[in-house]
This record gives sequence, C-alpha cells and structure tokens, in this order.
Amino acid sequence: MKRVGILGGGQLGRMLALAGLPLGLKFRFLDPNPEAPAGAVGELVVGRFDDPAVLDRFADGLDVATYEFENVPVESARRLAARVPVLPNPVALETAQDRLVEKTFFEKCGLPTAPFADVSDRDALAHAVARIGFPAVLKTRRLGYDGKGQAVVRDRAALEAAWAAMAPQPMILERFIRFDRELSIVAARGAGGQCVFYPLAENIHAGGILRESRAPAPALTEDVQEHAEARARAVMEKLDYTGVLAIEFFEHHGLLLANEFAPRVHNSGHWTIDGAFTSQFENHLRAILGLPLGPAAARCTAVMLNLIGSAPATQAILSAAPGARVHLYDKAPRPGRKIGHVTLLGASAGEAEHQAAAVRPMIEGAQ
Amino acid sequence: MKRVGILGGGQLGRMLALAGLPLGLKFRFLDPNPEAPAGAVGELVVGRFDDPAVLDRFADGLDVATYEFENVPVESARRLAARVPVLPNPVALETAQDRLVEKTFFEKCGLPTAPFADVSDRDALAHAVARIGFPAVLKTRRLGYDGKGQAVVRDRAALEAAWAAMAPQPMILERFIRFDRELSIVAARGAGGQCVFYPLAENIHAGGILRESRAPAPALTEDVQEHAEARARAVMEKLDYTGVLAIEFFEHHGLLLANEFAPRVHNSGHWTIDGAFTSQFENHLRAILGLPLGPAAARCTAVMLNLIGSAPATQAILSAAPGARVHLYDKAPRPGRKIGHVTLLGASAGEAEHQAAAVRPMIEGAQ
Repeated sequence: MKRVGILGGGQLGRMLALAGLPLGLKFRFLDPNPEAPAGAVGELVVGRFDDPAVLDRFADGLDVATYEFENVPVESARRLAARVPVLPNPVALETAQDRLVEKTFFEKCGLPTAPFADVSDRDALAHAVARIGFPAVLKTRRLGYDGKGQAVVRDRAALEAAWAAMAPQPMILERFIRFDRELSIVAARGAGGQCVFYPLAENIHAGGILRESRAPAPALTEDVQEHAEARARAVMEKLDYTGVLAIEFFEHHGLLLANEFAPRVHNSGHWTIDGAFTSQFENHLRAILGLPLGPAAARCTAVMLNLIGSAPATQAILSAAPGARVHLYDKAPRPGRKIGHVTLLGASAGEAEHQAAAVRPMIEGAQ
Repeated sequence: MKRVGILGGGQLGRMLALAGLPLGLKFRFLDPNPEAPAGAVGELVVGRFDDPAVLDRFADGLDVATYEFENVPVESARRLAARVPVLPNPVALETAQDRLVEKTFFEKCGLPTAPFADVSDRDALAHAVARIGFPAVLKTRRLGYDGKGQAVVRDRAALEAAWAAMAPQPMILERFIRFDRELSIVAARGAGGQCVFYPLAENIHAGGILRESRAPAPALTEDVQEHAEARARAVMEKLDYTGVLAIEFFEHHGLLLANEFAPRVHNSGHWTIDGAFTSQFENHLRAILGLPLGPAAARCTAVMLNLIGSAPATQAILSAAPGARVHLYDKAPRPGRKIGHVTLLGASAGEAEHQAAAVRPMIEGAQ
C-alpha cells in the first residue's frame, strides 16, 4: 500500500485521489485551507507550504510526493525532496513559475513562442517596446493564473498605466498574438522515459478563465497533433520530467506558438476522466509510481464545460442530458471560482455538441 | 451537499462513494470492522448493525440511507427507516434474505425457477424428496453467499449427511438444474418508476465464488436480453424498488430460470465502472437520490476478473495489459476473500478476451 503526498488539496488533488484509490493508493495532502476539497479523500495536513515543521510532518512515511498547484514555493519542494522522491522534479516547478524563465526555456527546447522581452526596470521597458511594438501584453513574471497579472496594451499610455499598476513586480512584455484558437496538449512521461500523449483539446476562455474544452479538438489534423507531441516530448525530456504536463499553444493557420506549460494535471485534460482510456490523473500517478502508462487515446468525442462561480442543480443537468458526467469539487460558490465541471460525450463531435447545447444555457444562467 | 449513509463498509460501499464523490455527495458507513475498506472515502461509524445507539448515531443528519450488504438485520433497516428514508425499502432486504421467501416471490412475479420445496423439518424433507427427486441441492434459507450454506446431493445418503450438517437451520430443497451458463442482469429503478437495464453478463464461478464476468454476455440475443429485462422490471415493480438490483439466472437452451436476486449493487456489474456509460454505483445513487438515471449501455466489451485471496503486483498486471482497469479494495489478502478486480476492455469480444488472456495466468498464479 503506497502513500502518495500531494502539495495542494484543491480539486486537482481530489481528482488525483479519486483516480488513485482504485489502484489501492493512500493519499495525504498539504494545504493551508482546512476546508480543502481533497480532505474528503485522504488525510489533510493543514499548514503553510513554507513551514519546515509542517513539511516534515507531511513527508513522514510518504512513498512519493507530487503537486497539484504550481505556485508551491520551490524551496519547499526541494526541502521535501531531501526526504522523499518529489516528482516531477522541482526544476519543472521553478521553470513554470517564472514567465521569463519559461519562455527562455521554450526557446531552448526549440518551441516557437510569441516574441517577448524582459522588463525588469524602466530602461528595459523602453527597449522592450521598441522591439515588441504594439499591441502587446504586459505580464508579471510570477503568480499569474486565470488571467490575473496581465494586461493587453495598445499604446504607450496604456502601457504606462499597466506598468504603474503592476510595479515593482518583475514583468515581461510579449507581442499580442492574433490566433485562430487555443489548443493544449496533455502528455505524460513515466519510468524509463515512456511517453503518452492525449489528443489536443481546443479551449475557450472568458474573463481569463477556461470555460470549455473540446477533445479531440475539432478539425484536428495529424500534422498538428504530431507537432504538439514532438514539442511536449522535447520539453519533458529537457526537464527529465516524470508525470503529467500540459502545454498551451496558440494555433494560427496551423502553426503552434507555445504560450505556457503547467507541471501538473490540467483543467483542459479533465475530459480524459470520462472520455479517454486512461485519465490524466491516473497516468500522473502511474508515472510517479513507476508503473507503465495507460493508453491516452480518446474513447469518444468530449466537450467539457467548467462550472464557474456557481452550478445549476445536478437534477437539472441530468434531466437535460442524462449521460452528462457531473464533477463537483465540494467548494463553496464564489464569483470566478472553479467549483466543478461537466463532460458531455458523443460518438461524434456533433453528438457531444448536441448534449453540450442542452446543458450550456443552464450553466451560463447559474453564473 | 447531500449525505448518504451506507449500511456496510466493504468494497461495494467504497465503490459507491468513489462514484458519488464526483456528484458532490458525502458518505457515512456503518460497519463492525474498524478497518472496513470504505473508511478511506467517508466517515466510518464502527459498531453492530443491531445496536440501537449505533444506528441512531449513524442516522443523524443523513439525507438517505442504503445498504451494500444484504444480510443487514431487517429490524435495523426498519428502525433506521423511522428516522431517514431507507432505499431500497426494507421489504426487498427481507425478501432476499430468505431463499424460500425469495423463490416464492419469484413465482408470484411470474419468474420461472428450479422446482423447490420447503424443508422446515424431517417430515417436510421426505415430502420434498418425493417431489424434487435427485440430484438436488439442499440450501439453508438464510445467510448463504459465495457458495456457503448449500450442498449438491445425489442420493438419500448424501441428503441425510447434508441435513445433519445444516440442521437445525431452516432449509429448502431445489432440483439440481443442468444449465448452459449463468447470466445476470443488473437493473436500476429510480424516481417515478424509471428503469434502466445493463446488458446481461455471463458469469463463471469456481468454488462457489464469482471469478469472471463477461459483458455484454457472448452470443447474447435480443430475445434473452428482453426476457431478462421484463423479469427484472416485474421484480422491481412488485417490490416498489428504488436503486440497483441484480438477478442471477440459469440459462438453458435460451430459457432463463431465476436463481436469486441481490437488493444492491452486484459483483457481476463491476464491469460497468469502465465499460458502461454510467456505472451501477452511480445509477444506484442517482436512483436513491431521485436523480434521473444514466444510460446503461455498454461502451465496449468487458471482461471482469476477480482477485480472490491475493493479487499479483499492479506493475505486473499493467505491464501485461497497459489498458487494464485495476480496482483494489484495500483489504488484507486472505484465502477466498475478494480483494479486488481487474476489467479488460475491447472494441470486440475477441479484443477484450485477448487482454484478459494476458492477465489471467498471473491472477491464477497469485491464488
């Protein structure tokens, strides 16, 4: 009976445990919130990620530790790694936590990105504007998620305002990219370098928060899938990565620009619970435990709708679509908060879309 | 947030919770064993089913109660029903707990059974033998499961010996039936009488314990499926049943004889977790909560192999069949004990069988 420790006790931790309990695993979570959703499926250690005593208590008796939250302090992950294997290794965390390091890393791996420039101070800002031009996006290097910590700027006045609002945090300036859609790949790398790749998902955001994912992405070509797989493989190999990783791409005319990666299971992979032969959660656990990875192919077409802020009654969802797969995270409703998701399945994209159309209005109505 | 109480904290309770946690449900279990497998996925009240104080503590704050174990004392279920809705209603429990009541009930519902006779005393035994003949099966009326409490008797001497071994328990004598195979149907009945039926599974037993189920059953005809559905519907309607129920049939030349029913989720329905659009566990919860039932169709062909007594290493199973769905119950190995199951999936029966063939030798080797 292996015991897995997870830094973070949110919905991703909860879904990892739901995938791992059938494999006979036990779970322990570390989270500052005593109401963390993962508390229902394992032992919850309540405390700060950077409290050494808490970390030691958390580490005691674990076989392996991982994270479901990429803003865990790297020093905490390293401290933990001195006592128990931490996978993926903390270098991945460190790389993903800083947009400048991340984009530079993408370049090193041969992944095209939007042009970007460091803007660590006002002088650098002037140089960056000269090189990047307008429109552009000013982003904090750290702690950005769900659209937070960034601003699209179309002229010098807007840039000054955004700079003033975000300073003195270190930032980067990126060229604003026109793109047809966002695609993401979820991939897993296991023992001995074995890799599996899920079909790309197409993602729709609103207000900086993921609202919908479709997988396999509509009109996905083999060529685009292969490109994304090659890039995910390059990133995972360069990091000597173990576990599940997701990369978000902008697709424009069939070309992929890497935007960011998450060193963890990812919201755009939630469809895999119901729509793939092995879920991203199970494959993450299989990877960090040194088990062979499971097939990542889609069993059908899936549309995943996030429940943001509040959720319609389960009764209403299942009445409209009896085959809907409802996933609630046991989180109190609050504006902008991800509290669940619903996956609709179909033998064809049209069928899944038809199911989604029955449920979408009530989800939007609840928000 | 609804709270569901389950009498029994074994693997069926554990799998009910694993299906219900994504629906945002919370679980409480009552079990005499402090190490009950369901303890990992909900609150475990440790105590006797027939202890009124324990039952009251268990009932406190539940929205609905159900059972995962059919030998819960009926009086306990009734006591509970005075405080909280208990579904399926305790009449189903009472009917299933006594083979004489159960067979008589099947007759009332129009389900053919093997000829049977009450043998409450020696006089009755003589009459029963005259009517049933040899070979026959002598069974205790109560507490039989996994082949316990029964004996095949081929002559008067064997009958006397079996009688002496089982007396003074009340018994029935049944005609020994030649059959081609055992089939079972898992069905659910929800609010307003809505019913769904899973495709029949073919079951293979050894030593009185289920070893393998195949679903949909090989060479299943529409006619046999429809017959089984009509019979399950008749049973559920007569009991005004709510929840999942399973009926085991002997099939001989395409005819079905009802053997027994279980007023709960059933081992021959475990394949539905991975192989059907909605698992039996989720549909049981949806039924008792008054939610619409989910589609019961198979997504593919499934072979379910029970892990009895001990299990091979997960590493070995997944190396042989990376797509295998491994389910471990967190139970200590012990001869004859069900400690897990593995489901193999395929687009065709042949493909699922091919996967099963890769795993079966190591399961048999571990036992």
